[in-house]
Amino acid sequence: MRYWEDFNAGEVSTFGAYHVSEAEIIEFAEAYDPLPFHTDPEAAKTSPYGRLTAPGLLTCAIFMRMLVDHVLADAASMGSPGVDSVRWPRPVLAGDTLSVRQQILSTRVLASRPEMGLVVNRFEVLNQHGELVCEIASNGLFARRDAAGEARP
Amino acid sequence: MRYWEDFNAGEVSTFGAYHVSEAEIIEFAEAYDPLPFHTDPEAAKTSPYGRLTAPGLLTCAIFMRMLVDHVLADAASMGSPGVDSVRWPRPVLAGDTLSVRQQILSTRVLASRPEMGLVVNRFEVLNQHGELVCEIASNGLFARRDAAGEARP
Repeated sequence: MRYWEDFNAGEVSTFGAYHVSEAEIIEFAEAYDPLPFHTDPEAAKTSPYGRLTAPGLLTCAIFMRMLVDHVLADAASMGSPGVDSVRWPRPVLAGDTLSVRQQILSTRVLASRPEMGLVVNRFEVLNQHGELVCEIASNGLFARRDAAGEARP
Repeated sequence: MRYWEDFNAGEVSTFGAYHVSEAEIIEFAEAYDPLPFHTDPEAAKTSPYGRLTAPGLLTCAIFMRMLVDHVLADAASMGSPGVDSVRWPRPVLAGDTLSVRQQILSTRVLASRPEMGLVVNRFEVLNQHGELVCEIASNGLFARRDAAGEARP
């Protein structure tokens, strides 16, 4: 089990290998982003990329799944205060395989809730060519190992 | 069909009425955010909210669906450069009904691509009690009606 103390500024890790199928793109898009260039392979042929592209939120959801499987499932996660930025510099296409690169930029104890600490991240979602398809600035809250929450310098 | 010219700074609109079922929370969470307080009603009883809460990304996906149905499906949407901020101040619970309040903060033609314009938004997702459950700062790109793209003052 990883606590806040186990996340250190400067750490870089990569994880995940998520295959994105055309079926998953269409199913997600029909539910949550039903625009033709996400749902209809024929219509997508006339789009700028010439084929189906994944909804940006599907890329975020796949990122989340990899984060849960490789980090959060074995951590004392207390959720997230939010997301500070999301960019999608390149499209995700059917057949792509995505992975995550996590950089921990800084960590600190919450002044208002010293029993937990913040981990400030920059996440990159990369395709099988190592190209950046999504960049996410999002912070995580984790319980401190010392749940008594003594002040730290 | 709404073009960039049809979005005006200062406009406020509300739309959507999306019922969030326990089944949808569990299905989405099992696919993309499989933590027990999203997937297991029994385990959720011991969580801070005492019941299942929707993954934050499901709330974003439901927001996107309402945005597509009520705005983008009949607009000359050219995508989005990204999301600048997402906050989830309150949980979304099974049985909630969500709606969207859109405020257009400003609009401008893109200097680099004068055939399209940017619409700067603040979106609020509200539950059936009018409580804010998600706040999203995200901008949209739309084609200009005058596709020739003359410079505007």
